[in-house]
Amino acid sequence: MRFIMTTSSFAAATSGPLLFSLPAPHRFESGAVLEGVQLAYETYGTLAPGADNAVLICHALTGDAHVAGSGSTPETARPGWWDEYVGPGRPIDTDRFFVICSNILGSCYGSTGPASINPATGTPYGLSFPVVTITDMVRAQHALVSHFGIERLCAVVGGSLGGMQVLEWAARYPDMVEAAIPIATTTRHSAQAIAFNEVARQSVISDPNWRQGEYYGGAAPDLGLAVARMIGHITYLSDESMHAKFGRNLQDRENLSFNFETDFQVESYLHHQGRKFVQRFDANSFLYVTKAADYFDLGLERPDSHAAQAFAKTRTRFLVVSFTSDWLYPTYQSRALVAHLQRGGRDVSFCEITEKWGHDAFLLPNSHFANILGGFLRHVC
Amino acid sequence: MRFIMTTSSFAAATSGPLLFSLPAPHRFESGAVLEGVQLAYETYGTLAPGADNAVLICHALTGDAHVAGSGSTPETARPGWWDEYVGPGRPIDTDRFFVICSNILGSCYGSTGPASINPATGTPYGLSFPVVTITDMVRAQHALVSHFGIERLCAVVGGSLGGMQVLEWAARYPDMVEAAIPIATTTRHSAQAIAFNEVARQSVISDPNWRQGEYYGGAAPDLGLAVARMIGHITYLSDESMHAKFGRNLQDRENLSFNFETDFQVESYLHHQGRKFVQRFDANSFLYVTKAADYFDLGLERPDSHAAQAFAKTRTRFLVVSFTSDWLYPTYQSRALVAHLQRGGRDVSFCEITEKWGHDAFLLPNSHFANILGGFLRHVC
Repeated sequence: MRFIMTTSSFAAATSGPLLFSLPAPHRFESGAVLEGVQLAYETYGTLAPGADNAVLICHALTGDAHVAGSGSTPETARPGWWDEYVGPGRPIDTDRFFVICSNILGSCYGSTGPASINPATGTPYGLSFPVVTITDMVRAQHALVSHFGIERLCAVVGGSLGGMQVLEWAARYPDMVEAAIPIATTTRHSAQAIAFNEVARQSVISDPNWRQGEYYGGAAPDLGLAVARMIGHITYLSDESMHAKFGRNLQDRENLSFNFETDFQVESYLHHQGRKFVQRFDANSFLYVTKAADYFDLGLERPDSHAAQAFAKTRTRFLVVSFTSDWLYPTYQSRALVAHLQRGGRDVSFCEITEKWGHDAFLLPNSHFANILGGFLRHVC
Repeated sequence: MRFIMTTSSFAAATSGPLLFSLPAPHRFESGAVLEGVQLAYETYGTLAPGADNAVLICHALTGDAHVAGSGSTPETARPGWWDEYVGPGRPIDTDRFFVICSNILGSCYGSTGPASINPATGTPYGLSFPVVTITDMVRAQHALVSHFGIERLCAVVGGSLGGMQVLEWAARYPDMVEAAIPIATTTRHSAQAIAFNEVARQSVISDPNWRQGEYYGGAAPDLGLAVARMIGHITYLSDESMHAKFGRNLQDRENLSFNFETDFQVESYLHHQGRKFVQRFDANSFLYVTKAADYFDLGLERPDSHAAQAFAKTRTRFLVVSFTSDWLYPTYQSRALVAHLQRGGRDVSFCEITEKWGHDAFLLPNSHFANILGGFLRHVC
């Protein structure tokens, strides 16, 4: 049975995310099993009769399904997070492709996660929600994609944590992925990346309001989560971009305050990012998605890993993209992936884009990146 | 009148830090004035009759006066924090030099700071303690040095925040500084460095136990301070050193935990650093010393700044040292200082040491660094 998508014929989603219920209980990588798992998703463009024009976009750590367009609901009123790159005539051309983007498992934008109600108790799961891995996210997406009757994706595309999902798709379902485009990502977290995530998690966990994740209905661990987000934001930018954006500029006075208020614009910016974030993201989901990032490890150095086995003979065409100033997932990590694929004789293109905006670069307008992405997709699909 | 130092004839301090009371009220850069300011200090070696063999060592953010040797008091039982580099026959040779190291103003190791008792109230100053700058620290040290009858220091040496003090000494008292050795430091904090400090401060401030700094006698903001220290520790290491030290090694089991306990060794290491730190450092002092670092700006690009004026004609000999993997105060920042001094025709040597240990490298044994430091001091003093 094909899933009938009434909104799929619009270039931009207008009605907010739709809900897909997994047809079977989800068995997590941890061994836990959960019934009633749902994914929130949006689609753009029209699925061709042969179901052969689909592109799956995977979002990053705290993203959502609203990847493009501006719709009429509160969820979609703002432009999608990758509106620069997805839409009619854009690099991921919705006049041509049927684009799917779903909120990741464990997140808080409609998909099942720790803030969802556990039907067995009538209260939110909290920490009783199973730890989620990139594999779990991808297996849930696979159910959604299959439900559309899609047997082969033109491309799976994503940056950062989305790029990890792209790599896991290519490793787990190589015959379903025509092209894989992992952007500003890594095959596994470095010790430094784990360290940043763990400190951010500890900031949440140390907030007395967190209460072992049982804060729903009461005061949330906003202060801890805000600090956690501030830590993250530093890693998303670069030394150079912070210098260009803020330097040592003072906030709104000519002199230092000589107290512990905000002196520098960069401090004010981080406070703002922290405050904004706690209004839109669930603290427990933050723990889950960062843990998923830390756990991710393709294990390419182990010949018996599922990824090494799949990549040894895959026919997927890879476009690996990195940004020079990204120090969270530095270019050398993308190069290692490319070298691995090249050694195996696989079809891989690599593009390192010179850009000062750090890890966040993949979310920002960049005509060079747009041309590469659009060109590659026109070529392979 | 010469200050009589009974312990100054020992190669290693044996009796713990001594206390020096500033002879006059300290006027802070902020304009605040405080009476009864004290500095805790240690000395090593013997002051020559002409008082012409003194070396001042400035410690980093959370350091103390115990720079070398192992003494008999609880404060000095552990080896000094720079024992590798200070002692008889070592690069800073206490057989030759009279070494002074004092705890910085605003810290919590014996010098007056926010945890000290305000004689006017009988309770700790807390946030009523004036904001401290590098200038304030250096002016207090100047009073100590002068009290010894020292009119000219052979060298002022220090790394990180200690290096900022070295630069401020050279800018403020150029005729008193024969040689200045700023190590792993910067002439001003970058936006990124300010960002890390501000997030760390927010972690302390967000801890409900902090209570606007009025936690003395009650529960201290240990959780917030531990997270703050964890943030700092990431910046003290490097991507490469964390990889070498921890990689993705798991803590004490072969499998992932699939919960929010500690999985990776790097997490355990950071937790340990956080726990250790809260036992030894005052949370308010942490706010003050990080703020001092953020405020520091020699202003060399402004021809009318006191540093630019002093450096235009100084006869101080500079040895600037940086480490390749230091990304907190990257080499390019040291190079900018060196270039400024060179353009002015000053006497400056620059040494960039190839080392993977990140910012912390200046605290670790390194024979190359030891040779350079010792050689320079033999040459200039």
